[in-house]
Amino acid sequence: MASAATAVSMDPGAKINPDIQKERDTATFDPLHLTYELDGGREVTERRRYIESLAFNDPDFDCKDVAFMTREENYTNSIRTAVLCIKKLKALDIHDITEAMWYRRAAHSRIALFPALGLQGMVCHTIETMDTNRQHWLEKAQNYELLATYCQTELGHGTFLRGLETTATYDPSTEEFVMHSPTLTAMKWWPGNLGKSVTHAVVAAQLYTKGKCYGVHMFMVQLRSLEDHQSLPGIELGDIGPKMGYANIDNGFLRFTHVRIPRENMLMKYSQVEPDGTYKAPPAAKLSYGSMILIRSAIVGSMGRVLAQAVTIATRYSAVRRQSELIPGAGEPQVLDFQSQQLKLFPHIATAYAFQFAGKQMHQMYADSLDQVSSGNFNVLPELHATAAGLKAFTSSVAMAGLELLRMACGGHGYSASSGFPLLYANESPACTYEGENTVMLLQTARFLMKCVRQLKSGQSFKGAMSYLAERPQSRCSAQSENDFLNPKVLLDAYRHRAQRIVFHAAENLDKAEKSGLARPLAWNQQHLYLIRAANAHCHLAVAEIFFAGVQRSEAPEAVKKVLMTMFQMYAVHGLSEKRGEFLQDGYMTGQQLDMVDRVLIRLLKETRPNAVTLVDSFDIHDKHMGSVMGRYDGNVYENMYKWAKSAPMNDKEVKDAYHLYIGPFLKENIANSKL
Amino acid sequence: MASAATAVSMDPGAKINPDIQKERDTATFDPLHLTYELDGGREVTERRRYIESLAFNDPDFDCKDVAFMTREENYTNSIRTAVLCIKKLKALDIHDITEAMWYRRAAHSRIALFPALGLQGMVCHTIETMDTNRQHWLEKAQNYELLATYCQTELGHGTFLRGLETTATYDPSTEEFVMHSPTLTAMKWWPGNLGKSVTHAVVAAQLYTKGKCYGVHMFMVQLRSLEDHQSLPGIELGDIGPKMGYANIDNGFLRFTHVRIPRENMLMKYSQVEPDGTYKAPPAAKLSYGSMILIRSAIVGSMGRVLAQAVTIATRYSAVRRQSELIPGAGEPQVLDFQSQQLKLFPHIATAYAFQFAGKQMHQMYADSLDQVSSGNFNVLPELHATAAGLKAFTSSVAMAGLELLRMACGGHGYSASSGFPLLYANESPACTYEGENTVMLLQTARFLMKCVRQLKSGQSFKGAMSYLAERPQSRCSAQSENDFLNPKVLLDAYRHRAQRIVFHAAENLDKAEKSGLARPLAWNQQHLYLIRAANAHCHLAVAEIFFAGVQRSEAPEAVKKVLMTMFQMYAVHGLSEKRGEFLQDGYMTGQQLDMVDRVLIRLLKETRPNAVTLVDSFDIHDKHMGSVMGRYDGNVYENMYKWAKSAPMNDKEVKDAYHLYIGPFLKENIANSKL
Repeated sequence: MASAATAVSMDPGAKINPDIQKERDTATFDPLHLTYELDGGREVTERRRYIESLAFNDPDFDCKDVAFMTREENYTNSIRTAVLCIKKLKALDIHDITEAMWYRRAAHSRIALFPALGLQGMVCHTIETMDTNRQHWLEKAQNYELLATYCQTELGHGTFLRGLETTATYDPSTEEFVMHSPTLTAMKWWPGNLGKSVTHAVVAAQLYTKGKCYGVHMFMVQLRSLEDHQSLPGIELGDIGPKMGYANIDNGFLRFTHVRIPRENMLMKYSQVEPDGTYKAPPAAKLSYGSMILIRSAIVGSMGRVLAQAVTIATRYSAVRRQSELIPGAGEPQVLDFQSQQLKLFPHIATAYAFQFAGKQMHQMYADSLDQVSSGNFNVLPELHATAAGLKAFTSSVAMAGLELLRMACGGHGYSASSGFPLLYANESPACTYEGENTVMLLQTARFLMKCVRQLKSGQSFKGAMSYLAERPQSRCSAQSENDFLNPKVLLDAYRHRAQRIVFHAAENLDKAEKSGLARPLAWNQQHLYLIRAANAHCHLAVAEIFFAGVQRSEAPEAVKKVLMTMFQMYAVHGLSEKRGEFLQDGYMTGQQLDMVDRVLIRLLKETRPNAVTLVDSFDIHDKHMGSVMGRYDGNVYENMYKWAKSAPMNDKEVKDAYHLYIGPFLKENIANSKL
Repeated sequence: MASAATAVSMDPGAKINPDIQKERDTATFDPLHLTYELDGGREVTERRRYIESLAFNDPDFDCKDVAFMTREENYTNSIRTAVLCIKKLKALDIHDITEAMWYRRAAHSRIALFPALGLQGMVCHTIETMDTNRQHWLEKAQNYELLATYCQTELGHGTFLRGLETTATYDPSTEEFVMHSPTLTAMKWWPGNLGKSVTHAVVAAQLYTKGKCYGVHMFMVQLRSLEDHQSLPGIELGDIGPKMGYANIDNGFLRFTHVRIPRENMLMKYSQVEPDGTYKAPPAAKLSYGSMILIRSAIVGSMGRVLAQAVTIATRYSAVRRQSELIPGAGEPQVLDFQSQQLKLFPHIATAYAFQFAGKQMHQMYADSLDQVSSGNFNVLPELHATAAGLKAFTSSVAMAGLELLRMACGGHGYSASSGFPLLYANESPACTYEGENTVMLLQTARFLMKCVRQLKSGQSFKGAMSYLAERPQSRCSAQSENDFLNPKVLLDAYRHRAQRIVFHAAENLDKAEKSGLARPLAWNQQHLYLIRAANAHCHLAVAEIFFAGVQRSEAPEAVKKVLMTMFQMYAVHGLSEKRGEFLQDGYMTGQQLDMVDRVLIRLLKETRPNAVTLVDSFDIHDKHMGSVMGRYDGNVYENMYKWAKSAPMNDKEVKDAYHLYIGPFLKENIANSKL
């Protein structure tokens, strides 16, 4: 089937490698229709491609490969691109958040996935949510009369907000707050662009007034002069040094030595400090973590796209790469034909679809909850919070392990920067530790699940994603034959049973520990093993259910719905096979049934084989975004790896300084000695 | 207990962080005795420390942190260090292979784990094994009158040796071979130091003589002039470009255009080409893969040490890092007190011990096999080959996944280059794809296992690591209580049963597929799922058995033997819990038994807690080798992270060029506009 869908994602003049063309010819569906499904409609796809093309085709955004840059070059180019991008978005009159995001992503595709100065948006959001009605800071930030970042994490303090040490002490005599870092570990550490770029920051600090501490509040602080960018008195700033990735960003540190700021710089929409120092508590603080939930929700879909990018590279390369021999004399087959390779690739294609559907659902859930909240219903927040936390952790862990497995599925070449994998992994893997460390996130989900169990036991009913906990599903899996394991009901029943069993098991263990006399936090700490298992099982079910619901809702052509159903089956069956122990533990499934599951998995691999390349084409990731020689749409891998290598800075000279300084003298000395 | 053991691994003047001192005070054993056990005796430890100190204390090896270097600086410094190291080893009269390795590792500790010019040894080994008796090349290589690398992998060809495309065509008229790269994919690609450093290479090429191809043979080829280092005519050389790690090494490409070399440059110990072009086949080619097995065997122990390094960093940091609250008002506990953190750390401490024992065993097995071979017994080779391949894959996969989990267990700070994790992972993860890609390796182990099953079925008996396949173990796990799961026999029986069941299951499936009429290679390809599972189960058992045998053999003081036994139990119990499905599948274990296993795991965590820091101290990895601010012996993490960050090149100027070029003009324009 012709593949007009992705023709836009490659150089117009390039010839398609016949091995990869052959793959596209065997597809049973039109990839364009699947792209529409992911985007949410043909119009969206077309608009996205148009917006992206504005950036992809703009030579102002061209630069050399970041793998060839020094850190200094990378940082400078990243600032250049960010400033350019802001100006162009304004000139192009693109204001819609999604459209601006498409443009920004395309403009930054050659650099990194995280654009410089990217926290300005979060700062604006924070001011909007938390500042009083004065538009002072918001206007300045929106007009880029200042550059700001968001300072929360400290050298000694991360996820546990209450542990922050930075203080903001109110002085009624001057109506100022005194910002101070009382210890080394109180230094702000990690905020993006804090080191060298921003002029201002929203700073989280312990508020002291009238001798009493009222906990963490937010303050707007100017850090550098708007005249010459020098740090202001009492403020020490710097870059925190190189990291695994994010070489383009000057993550920074900040130390205050008794720095005075006006009282009005406190963001006072919720809590207030009056001129005389009287503290006024917020009426309801519940929305204060809204932007955190928003970011976690966004990570879910983003993990789907990152995994899609990785599996696109690996699948296309596997269609071009040939190795070993299956039939003597028949030549080397495509590595895509090896079952072991299919086992690495195809379940990850399915997972990338699953996570993108989950991302759309999280987006929807966030929007719906916001509606509820604005009509005064705060009850939806705990479930939203628990779901966002859990799915953020679940999807990022799976995606990052997947990225490395897919890189290694490309053999040695995956290790070359030309594959695109090293940069992708280095820049994306923080998703597991930032915005709430994954284990902490799973434990937060578990906390909500335990609350649900307590509610159930006390006779309360509830709706939403946790309602399966109240159901009484079958105690045995009903599958009699391999075909039964293609039935979504059989598959989802199994996931429901497993999650329910593990959640209740964790609750029982927790109960027992508390009844044995342990204080609740200590009892809790001794059940982490069970609680994390429960949260994972719950999230796995949630993703499977969302994926299936998405496939059911789809209005795409039958051929597309069929292949999506195969992807759902692959996702669910692969999970059964991998997590078999949790389905076997209480006899819900038998060993014989899991033997069937393995055979069904193998059948699904075969069924997917002719569609593999087209399934990744449908992700519609432009070559410029991919940043991978091995993942090119045209499949012309080897000639381009060679071209890329030739252009590497190490090849600037035939004979390097290391020869003149060390190798040459050493060899000549040894040769001379041997002649003695 | 005092810890004289590791006092040498830190700056003499440093003060120990009280949190970490407290950990050392609770240990139940002397870490020094455990270090002796790992090293193989007190004398070995003392000698190793002495040799290492020669390099650690030599200011000639000092250099700035590699994280602060450009690639060019890194490469040049790496060559400098390698040349210096060779000269110093000679001056110090250190010739023993192990001692030289200790010295080289210490000298290179600040740079990378793979020293430049490191393939000279492999080239010498290849010449010794495969060349005729003429000592020509060996002497030159040993005296460093030439620098050589080993060229096998090509742009289009890796693991499958027979697929190599480079040709060596014999021309009897001049008694020369003509080396040629007939296609782009025939270019040699990846060899270490090929790009810019070496002058010679041992090249694997398809031998053609008298119009016939005789397969891959080895040839010594001069690549660059010994006068001025220019590439010789017909030879194109270059660096293959940046990679995920190994920035210090110029992995290179090499293209031949009809390059002539003398007939004598073929390594002719086994096969020969006579002056008239007559080919003489080798009498027995079996030893030709000896150096490959040697390297794979060495990787096993090395993965144990790499994991030890990672878990040392994470455990020490977890003793210093404080977070959240367990008991309200009691302050933030050490993260080492959280069960979820213990679940990440302690099983990896156990695994690091297990793999180091496995490494010693592989070393012994290799030496024993070599003895057998020299007395004419080639029968031991297939088992040696299968074991080295499988354990290389098994240990490297587990270790690399462990490294990332341990990095993330350090939260955001693990992502900083100051943690040491990014460099460690980037430089070690190729262990999964080089020297035989892991999946291919597991399939080779599976091939041998299937051969064993066929032998068993035909009534043949055999000895060695696969002999458990012939046993008839119990069909049910005998454990009645939690304590039974501390019994090594119960634990090992379970692993034996599981491996046996899965190996036979794979063999049955293979049989069925062949009987259904599929050609053997196609049948094989359709059973990868089962075959890889079988190889992993076998390797898991092998490591557990080796670990237990090592603990039993130990002559260390009782307190050390006791803690080693706890580590063995931890390794085995954690494996049961993680791989529960494979023990439940046929009813060998029940769900109730696996509930006990989880409880035993939790008990073992508690038992390990007071010894955690001392267990990693016993790995005796010097601070200079660790290259991690967070893994310091003295635990003074934060002040040193700050110092390190201040010294980063990005902090060379308070106001960077990016401000003058982009940020400043942008802000000023926006401020001016707002005033209009």
